[in-house]
Amino acid sequence: MPFDIQVLDNGTVTSPKGFRAGAVYSGLKTPGPGKLDLGLLVSDTPAKTAATFSQNSILSPSVTVSRESLKGGREKRAVVVNSGNANCAVGEQGFKDAREVVSLAADHIGVDASEVLVCSTGVIGVELPMGLIRAHMGTIELSDDGGNDLVKAIVTTDKRLKQKAVSINVGGVTVSIGGISKGSGMIHPNMATMLSFLSTDANVEQEFLSATLQAAVDVSFNMLTVDTDQSTNDTCILMANGAANNAEITAGTAEGELFAAAVTDIAIHLAREMARDGEGASKLIDSTVTGAYTVADARMAARSIASSPLVKTAVYGRDPNWGRILMAVGKTSIPLDESKIQVFINDIQIVEGGAAIPYHVESVVQALGRPEVYLRVALNVGDGDATAWGCDLTEEYVVFNSAYTT
Amino acid sequence: MPFDIQVLDNGTVTSPKGFRAGAVYSGLKTPGPGKLDLGLLVSDTPAKTAATFSQNSILSPSVTVSRESLKGGREKRAVVVNSGNANCAVGEQGFKDAREVVSLAADHIGVDASEVLVCSTGVIGVELPMGLIRAHMGTIELSDDGGNDLVKAIVTTDKRLKQKAVSINVGGVTVSIGGISKGSGMIHPNMATMLSFLSTDANVEQEFLSATLQAAVDVSFNMLTVDTDQSTNDTCILMANGAANNAEITAGTAEGELFAAAVTDIAIHLAREMARDGEGASKLIDSTVTGAYTVADARMAARSIASSPLVKTAVYGRDPNWGRILMAVGKTSIPLDESKIQVFINDIQIVEGGAAIPYHVESVVQALGRPEVYLRVALNVGDGDATAWGCDLTEEYVVFNSAYTT
Repeated sequence: MPFDIQVLDNGTVTSPKGFRAGAVYSGLKTPGPGKLDLGLLVSDTPAKTAATFSQNSILSPSVTVSRESLKGGREKRAVVVNSGNANCAVGEQGFKDAREVVSLAADHIGVDASEVLVCSTGVIGVELPMGLIRAHMGTIELSDDGGNDLVKAIVTTDKRLKQKAVSINVGGVTVSIGGISKGSGMIHPNMATMLSFLSTDANVEQEFLSATLQAAVDVSFNMLTVDTDQSTNDTCILMANGAANNAEITAGTAEGELFAAAVTDIAIHLAREMARDGEGASKLIDSTVTGAYTVADARMAARSIASSPLVKTAVYGRDPNWGRILMAVGKTSIPLDESKIQVFINDIQIVEGGAAIPYHVESVVQALGRPEVYLRVALNVGDGDATAWGCDLTEEYVVFNSAYTT
Repeated sequence: MPFDIQVLDNGTVTSPKGFRAGAVYSGLKTPGPGKLDLGLLVSDTPAKTAATFSQNSILSPSVTVSRESLKGGREKRAVVVNSGNANCAVGEQGFKDAREVVSLAADHIGVDASEVLVCSTGVIGVELPMGLIRAHMGTIELSDDGGNDLVKAIVTTDKRLKQKAVSINVGGVTVSIGGISKGSGMIHPNMATMLSFLSTDANVEQEFLSATLQAAVDVSFNMLTVDTDQSTNDTCILMANGAANNAEITAGTAEGELFAAAVTDIAIHLAREMARDGEGASKLIDSTVTGAYTVADARMAARSIASSPLVKTAVYGRDPNWGRILMAVGKTSIPLDESKIQVFINDIQIVEGGAAIPYHVESVVQALGRPEVYLRVALNVGDGDATAWGCDLTEEYVVFNSAYTT
């Protein structure tokens, strides 16, 4: 890595200075040992905030309320989040409830309601059990390492927790960036909600912060929504509270580049972990397309490979069916020159000039058996590169999703 | 149906006058009882021909050779087709082989090579075994009911044969239209190839014939390619030889409308049968979206529902998870008014105004158990309607596709 980015041990969203978090079990999810379902991420001082939301035409009122809050001002103190209920497709009640959740959180931590964002994930079409939330919001205790609880409070069908923090040196000052996420952008539990909360104690110029988050999301979470599914609740929030007291980071500077690289590093880590955690997944698929005419072409092709059910089942079955990979590239209708195409599976080349070359089949079968499978298509016509992440498609996915609410 | 369209008993692509077909087993597919893999559809006289082809960036040379042939002239005598080998991703040899197959077919039936189109379907990346094709082309015997053999010669993983013919009365003259197809536009065996051959003895003006085929494909096969997969070999060909001796059918006439309705009827029948025959499918999903702002919006939304893995698994599991249906509509980002949305499963309404209404759950579970499941979303904001077809997603799909070539 060309940038000097230090990974923090046991890093989480409260690793940066001036962030605290906490979570409780309020009864929104079915009970279980250690389960949490209502949490808060709080900055001790107003934090410049950037966010990206689902483009779905049908949005959770929690998303709409947060989006409107950001229009009213981008300095925020907290995010309140619940799992177990998406607060979606419940009519006007959803807006009323989202605003009350915000209000309850603001009262509990002693800030203005305009400074609190709200996120929900879980079952759709069922009203939020506000009685439970009212009863438990006040019991949330915040702590400096509360990110470790908060990450548990946002999961639904996740099998592993996703969190990371890093530090960088900005003009002699160490600043940290942390993040947590839940869900899988690809194999979608109950509306596929992807939630991600990032924090930093860096002092960052607001417009640059927003641009940095959007750029990081584009090469991470947006390369994970490989079957174009987007939930009604997808949200990624980045809060920067400036507690590190560095000189403000701005666009077009070496510090800005380093900061953006660190944010992107965390976002890609979280996205990869989400792909790995896809329902029923046995393998992470890392799909890279190089040498397309444009980056947009490469992005389309990389996502098409990682999302193709035929590629996903072939990877699951350890079947070096490179024809499916070519089909997935071609179905995007991007311009290419078939005679220049090379295909690699975990760096073993199996296609040259658009046609199969002799390769050791058993080596490829073994490569396809690894927990991370790298599929790479070199188009060799331009400079557009992109990577997408997905996972294999297994019987377990079908079993799981054919009986989620019943 | 507002049009008077008669279904012909045991109808097939050779039901219209002046069409013959035949097929043999040449060894391209693994042997089996009754298996055929090389066939011909022949018109006794030059037929006006229209065709649509895959938009995949990577095309089988068989597609490219046929497309170029049509640019050179749209009156054709025959289509030669093989299954078991897609003649794709084999470099320059593929073009050489496609042209030789055309030439062998033309010689056998005594027409000019420029009058013969070629289609291939099957394994990708393996050169056509030309020795087998050379040895067997001359043994194909044509007959008036040869459509019943030809339909067997085009199948790959299909579990059922797809064919239909109808007749209509055009100005006092009975004309017939027949069709056969293979594959599934949705759940894609080995590159998903969809081949469809339609024939008619009607005398039809060439431009109107082409427009009619394109319009019919748009509301049938193109509403089946619901996961946006398109194979390298997809082809639909319609030949009109005028053997019925009717006055030429043209655009903007009642006869033209009737003819278009009959072609569409066959195309939709074949498309639905292909959805029903999806790999591992246990049910046909008929997804209709009404009242969108535009037909384009309705088409996107209908396809999104029918292709959503979460909807497909929910239908398989008889899970009335209407939230997934709403998510699938919304993820297209089409404009809508959530408060006007209604959702019906086999005509049982379960959503009104974007939120669940009380319904008898067991009735919906039973409806989801039928071999044909009708999902209908009424957006109630405009006049755009569309229907798409798909099938449920089962463990069998995963098992089948994770071990196709190995």
